Amino acid sequence: MKVKTISLAVILSLVSLNSYAKEFVLTDNENAISKGDWSLTNQDLGVKNSTFKIQNNVLKGGKQEGSQVITISSGNFTIKVSPTRGMGILSVEGDGVRMGWDSPVDEVVNPSNITLESRGGLGWLDGFNEMMVRCGFEWTGHPVTADGMIYTLHGRAGNTPVSKLVIDIEDKAPYTITVKGLIKENTFKKSHLETWATLSYVPGQKSFTVHDIVTNKGDYVRDYQIIYHSNYGTPILEEGAQFIAPVKEISPFNDYAVEGLQDWQMYLGPTKDFDEMVFNVYPYADEQGMTKVMLANKAGDMGAGIEFNINQLPVLSLWKNTDTLKQGYVTGLEPGTSFAYPVTIEREQKRVRQLEPGQSAEFSLTYHLFTDKKSVDDFSHKIQAIQGDRLTTVIEEPMAYE
Amino acid sequence: MKVKTISLAVILSLVSLNSYAKEFVLTDNENAISKGDWSLTNQDLGVKNSTFKIQNNVLKGGKQEGSQVITISSGNFTIKVSPTRGMGILSVEGDGVRMGWDSPVDEVVNPSNITLESRGGLGWLDGFNEMMVRCGFEWTGHPVTADGMIYTLHGRAGNTPVSKLVIDIEDKAPYTITVKGLIKENTFKKSHLETWATLSYVPGQKSFTVHDIVTNKGDYVRDYQIIYHSNYGTPILEEGAQFIAPVKEISPFNDYAVEGLQDWQMYLGPTKDFDEMVFNVYPYADEQGMTKVMLANKAGDMGAGIEFNINQLPVLSLWKNTDTLKQGYVTGLEPGTSFAYPVTIEREQKRVRQLEPGQSAEFSLTYHLFTDKKSVDDFSHKIQAIQGDRLTTVIEEPMAYE
Amino acid sequence: MKVKTISLAVILSLVSLNSYAKEFVLTDNENAISKGDWSLTNQDLGVKNSTFKIQNNVLKGGKQEGSQVITISSGNFTIKVSPTRGMGILSVEGDGVRMGWDSPVDEVVNPSNITLESRGGLGWLDGFNEMMVRCGFEWTGHPVTADGMIYTLHGRAGNTPVSKLVIDIEDKAPYTITVKGLIKENTFKKSHLETWATLSYVPGQKSFTVHDIVTNKGDYVRDYQIIYHSNYGTPILEEGAQFIAPVKEISPFNDYAVEGLQDWQMYLGPTKDFDEMVFNVYPYADEQGMTKVMLANKAGDMGAGIEFNINQLPVLSLWKNTDTLKQGYVTGLEPGTSFAYPVTIEREQKRVRQLEPGQSAEFSLTYHLFTDKKSVDDFSHKIQAIQGDRLTTVIEEPMAYE
Repeated sequence: MKVKTISLAVILSLVSLNSYAKEFVLTDNENAISKGDWSLTNQDLGVKNSTFKIQNNVLKGGKQEGSQVITISSGNFTIKVSPTRGMGILSVEGDGVRMGWDSPVDEVVNPSNITLESRGGLGWLDGFNEMMVRCGFEWTGHPVTADGMIYTLHGRAGNTPVSKLVIDIEDKAPYTITVKGLIKENTFKKSHLETWATLSYVPGQKSFTVHDIVTNKGDYVRDYQIIYHSNYGTPILEEGAQFIAPVKEISPFNDYAVEGLQDWQMYLGPTKDFDEMVFNVYPYADEQGMTKVMLANKAGDMGAGIEFNINQLPVLSLWKNTDTLKQGYVTGLEPGTSFAYPVTIEREQKRVRQLEPGQSAEFSLTYHLFTDKKSVDDFSHKIQAIQGDRLTTVIEEPMAYE
Repeated sequence: MKVKTISLAVILSLVSLNSYAKEFVLTDNENAISKGDWSLTNQDLGVKNSTFKIQNNVLKGGKQEGSQVITISSGNFTIKVSPTRGMGILSVEGDGVRMGWDSPVDEVVNPSNITLESRGGLGWLDGFNEMMVRCGFEWTGHPVTADGMIYTLHGRAGNTPVSKLVIDIEDKAPYTITVKGLIKENTFKKSHLETWATLSYVPGQKSFTVHDIVTNKGDYVRDYQIIYHSNYGTPILEEGAQFIAPVKEISPFNDYAVEGLQDWQMYLGPTKDFDEMVFNVYPYADEQGMTKVMLANKAGDMGAGIEFNINQLPVLSLWKNTDTLKQGYVTGLEPGTSFAYPVTIEREQKRVRQLEPGQSAEFSLTYHLFTDKKSVDDFSHKIQAIQGDRLTTVIEEPMAYE
Repeated sequence: MKVKTISLAVILSLVSLNSYAKEFVLTDNENAISKGDWSLTNQDLGVKNSTFKIQNNVLKGGKQEGSQVITISSGNFTIKVSPTRGMGILSVEGDGVRMGWDSPVDEVVNPSNITLESRGGLGWLDGFNEMMVRCGFEWTGHPVTADGMIYTLHGRAGNTPVSKLVIDIEDKAPYTITVKGLIKENTFKKSHLETWATLSYVPGQKSFTVHDIVTNKGDYVRDYQIIYHSNYGTPILEEGAQFIAPVKEISPFNDYAVEGLQDWQMYLGPTKDFDEMVFNVYPYADEQGMTKVMLANKAGDMGAGIEFNINQLPVLSLWKNTDTLKQGYVTGLEPGTSFAYPVTIEREQKRVRQLEPGQSAEFSLTYHLFTDKKSVDDFSHKIQAIQGDRLTTVIEEPMAYE
């Protein structure tokens, strides 16, 4: 349960990094800045040996009125992020291959149009369509009524508009683009967690890094939880697609998942009445704690990989929602501090972490899009190298019941 | 329980109709269009043999900040519709006679300022002031806690801002004006109902048609319900005003309504402590299923009529809220698929309909404003012709208890 | 329980006053006016013998997107008010001394981003950071589930954006500045309370007056409650700061407050794990019902005073939240019609007032900032004069249990 604090050295290195970058403040709550529609290209910066474009758009219509979307693109690689929705990643596309999925929710819903408490705490489902949504930080998991309140599904960060939004671009090659948003989960007497949610992208690459620093700004020890709910549909997800990971232990989330336990590595095609099966995974990692997981398509020539550190994110929820296309054919590879059980269960089973006053926790995840067989194979081999000859324990009973 | 699906021929005919119309897109969620303040007159279109004006205004102040209102007018006839509030009709006025009422809620409340779950599921009352509000489509009726959630009063459509808003004007006489809004009730795993809510008006007339097409965009059979909550206060509603309809069966909604059952056809003036009496009505119809109902004033020289088809809308709730003027002196003539009982009761009593995947249901209602004795008499005779010598069954006990 | 109604004469006098003032309408729901960013100085008005500036700003970023803040300043005295948050006073500063406090909620949260029902009715805490917030008027106090709903913490007025916002400036000395906002608590069948919430400031002074008129616009008798939750942190609040008031009776709000009853007049410094102690106070007043209360710092050279009439506001909640600085080190001096118990208890104990149809109630509170020893002493002497030799009854048991 040990949590890494950020050393001053790290902070200083970040500061000094910034001193060599151009910074663009798009939103700043303290200075009444909200730039709205905005764009910037490598040409605007006089950069000739790299091609990139960053734009911010304000959406209109329906429940997305006023939502903002940042699009980062370089060549045929595009990342879409919504600062209005807690820096959630809407979709990523490269070489014509998409990371993301098709939700019945086809708007970038402005949180002001969502009541998280609706449907018994399932209001989060009114906005859920991201490739990656932060489920946390004050709490996460399935809703539960406890302590005189509803702990709503997957917490509040994903429905919190950022108070600050800053874009940094390194002023020399490789011109790394960093988009940073400040998510405030501040409630008098209850919560004072502030998170700098960052996405860094090196133009030309087909990967990017999410780096979050959540800080307890208050004077009391506070619980926190986080699940990086990372979701993929077609074309990578398909019948015969595979979940490839170095797995130390896997167990079914509930009785329904027991039925699918044998085939945890394989995916079905779109399947009527499948609903969802969730598996609780403890990954193996290398000596530094780094691990890698991947969704690969059947042919093994498309893949979505995630690298993270199990000291930061010790567990992974594998969410197989291989229902019909229109219902939302999608799988979630979800590194987290917690599984998706209600916070009451996560507390009992000691997976809820705490931050001391002033303390921060950091989370880094590198997302890869693979669009050819070689890169899928390479990542797969690295995963196998982590597993080595270590065994996978398959536990046949859920560790808890909701 | 059979529901008409739209044939391709119907869709094509709609498309071809449009090919002879000028189209103005005021809101489009897919193209970040939201025109805001906007207006158009027959002169702008070079039309000389018809007079009309259409405008869209963005409201300010209080809980209506950002709400939009479309005003369609021709001569002394005016219709106000709010796309922000699910295409609800705020009021209609012609010849100095108003269809609509005075609610204590005197703003066009932006749904982002409403929590439907408040007051135990009565949050809808924070915005209710329309002449016609769609109560549906995922559910309707009085609130009830069931299935681990609150089914909030009268569903969500009336508090859903449209994702698309399109105005069509035929480019030849009679220059029919059609305002179309797309209401999305989309929630991951729960709902995927999309409704094109349309109002068509022929300049110069004192009537208009509401035509809705609700489609189950998902892959699973879904329940739906709809009540067209159509509401009239002064001047048509007054002491001695009459509800005129071809009634096959009428019964009291609850024990309180039993007291008013004898006088179901007559209205009281504003009456302190009256609160509301509701009656459940099954109308007679002609051979095509068409029926007509009307509220007429005492002198019979003002009236509000509705025509609809009982195959689409088999029941009618008669809501007599003849309380004081400031409390909201109003009656509702509410054609629907359901009565106003909670969805749990409507399910038990088999009035909740279903849509197969991809299936649509259509609803058409023509609203008439009558401002002279002759037109009231004519409509009344047509209603009598539908009734013919068929008897009205008056049932003295409620069909259900909440 | 007698409530003063406003005579026509009073209304006319107000009207005639206005005829000698310049009026600026910043928001008007009936005319689609919302001026947004706006400012005005004495120079703009050609006034030479007084210095003042009034500005309105629209905030950006995070949960405060779209919130408005009016800043009134004269010399080194500044008042900040948010019309978006029910005319709550954010902070006051003069001579470098601040009235107000530092909440973990450091944005002026737009109510469209708050769900009052969240956290079991504690959603109000997501926005609470004002120096003075109106807790009312339909209800106030701690949340309770009763009558099939949650009476959410401290009611809705503080999270209601004003429908009208008008600034009046007298056109001759002393050029009194009056900011008026209209708060509508209108819900069909439930509530029809409208409040003109007014703040008047004479340029050059270090005090200002809040004057509210709440009117029952409906036809039925309605309950109302109000607590003027007036909150002070550093620098006036500190270890050894004092609460100075003419106290007739004081009692602990709950068992925890019993522990602090002996020291009700003194404050602790920031104290870990202190949380909050609340005391129920009945103040003494002079023959006109006027009373005065003050928070003074330890040295007695800084103070925050409030004058009010116990016929309007008979009780005062003394809220000692001397927890740590980051947790919110703050005390509330809260004149009200009610204590902070849930409305159910306030009803039982007969502190819930009523307004007849059309009836209004008025509340006036004058807030003083004292920045030197003499003014603190003067106010203290006036308080002592009210107390005279009348005894303070200290009751050792709470009057109710939640």
